[in-house]
Amino acid sequence: MPDPGNPVEQPDAAQFPLLPQLTLDCIILGFHEDQLRVLLLRWKDTQEWSLPGGPVRQNESVDAAAHRILKERTGLDQLFLQQFHVFGDVVRYNREEIKKKLKHVIDPEKWYERAVSIGYYALVDYSKVSPTPDAFTEECQWWDIKNIPQLLFDHNHIITVALQALRIQLSWQPIGYNLLPEEFTMPELQRLYETILGRTLDPRNFHRKIQGLGIVERLETRRKGGAHKAPYLYRFNKAQYEAMLTEGNLSFS
Amino acid sequence: MPDPGNPVEQPDAAQFPLLPQLTLDCIILGFHEDQLRVLLLRWKDTQEWSLPGGPVRQNESVDAAAHRILKERTGLDQLFLQQFHVFGDVVRYNREEIKKKLKHVIDPEKWYERAVSIGYYALVDYSKVSPTPDAFTEECQWWDIKNIPQLLFDHNHIITVALQALRIQLSWQPIGYNLLPEEFTMPELQRLYETILGRTLDPRNFHRKIQGLGIVERLETRRKGGAHKAPYLYRFNKAQYEAMLTEGNLSFS
Repeated sequence: MPDPGNPVEQPDAAQFPLLPQLTLDCIILGFHEDQLRVLLLRWKDTQEWSLPGGPVRQNESVDAAAHRILKERTGLDQLFLQQFHVFGDVVRYNREEIKKKLKHVIDPEKWYERAVSIGYYALVDYSKVSPTPDAFTEECQWWDIKNIPQLLFDHNHIITVALQALRIQLSWQPIGYNLLPEEFTMPELQRLYETILGRTLDPRNFHRKIQGLGIVERLETRRKGGAHKAPYLYRFNKAQYEAMLTEGNLSFS
Repeated sequence: MPDPGNPVEQPDAAQFPLLPQLTLDCIILGFHEDQLRVLLLRWKDTQEWSLPGGPVRQNESVDAAAHRILKERTGLDQLFLQQFHVFGDVVRYNREEIKKKLKHVIDPEKWYERAVSIGYYALVDYSKVSPTPDAFTEECQWWDIKNIPQLLFDHNHIITVALQALRIQLSWQPIGYNLLPEEFTMPELQRLYETILGRTLDPRNFHRKIQGLGIVERLETRRKGGAHKAPYLYRFNKAQYEAMLTEGNLSFS
């Protein structure tokens, strides 16, 4: 019989009672060397990987729990964090297989029969993250999104759904703040979009679209070093960017 | 001490054990006489209204619970149903006030200290709905979205967030199927969009935009009865409509 107060033997469960049968899973995405990367954890004494996540405490909001988990894994505050889906099937994965694989870390009697998971994705500045494992894992590492291993639980599925949500979000919200350095070139922004969408875009159309949204402003300076035709640097217009985050790109005028 | 197995004295709780501290709230929207309307329930022996909703059973998925609740309240299967937000604050409303107001229906000892709610909205064909109250309520009725009373719990807030999500969805997904009759005129579709967006749209731009999406096809017939210049009838192109529901309106080419 699983202990409903203590799903995964959280070290601080006595101090922080938990919401039963509810967990979060976090897709933490960074952009580096033209790759979209996701932060994964390797469980102790195994070659098994999973997404970061964990339960919600009785005394914190669901969003606060997501921020806490992200802070613990990355060291970062104030991430761009988005709920994208609730994974609520009765049977989400083969529980017996998981209990067996992780029995040296978690007592098989201590798992819930079922947990509902709320999925969040976070877009972070790759260079500022200090990847940090949790109590059950010994390694926290970036993986190229195109090269994810077979993960524990239903976490490959969760990543697939997160990327669908992110692609749809691209069509009505700006993206890039947090993922790019403060100053960037138009080709760099385009590569970020192409990486998320998984296809190439026409540079002229892309430039026109982004300029039309009013979310970037061109600086007087160009990317240093090298070619005569070095590309201009841009930065986000934070006010317009924030407005679009709230309003969306309502294209009916 | 609240009984964690029986948050609101569900009549069939013994038969169907529940996921503790988790509920659904459903915004069921219909379109009638140029009004967007929402289905509300009046609690027994009160003038207090709330959204339909309820707990999730241990043996059903979260989505199945939403479908079950919607079927019970409307009589309809196969509704367009969309998760839009998890309401997860520690304190969502004044619990003592609620316990007092509803104590003749629910034993004040039987409430959870806290519940997380998953919000769904459904778009339905107004004419096909048979509004039906649940075990705690005695009336189920359509309300004009512009004229909602002060509701119990945090349900006014939940409706506000649902409408924001629906408006954003309009900018990347088609809407109208389920909300309009099978055949409709372009002005009727435009009034639906205007009602949801809360502002008027230019007819020529609207027509061009909708045609550009390829989601409607013009029929040979015109709206019967009356004027010489009766408007053409349209219907949705279901294949294109479904494709856009999945893909979104990715406006980068």
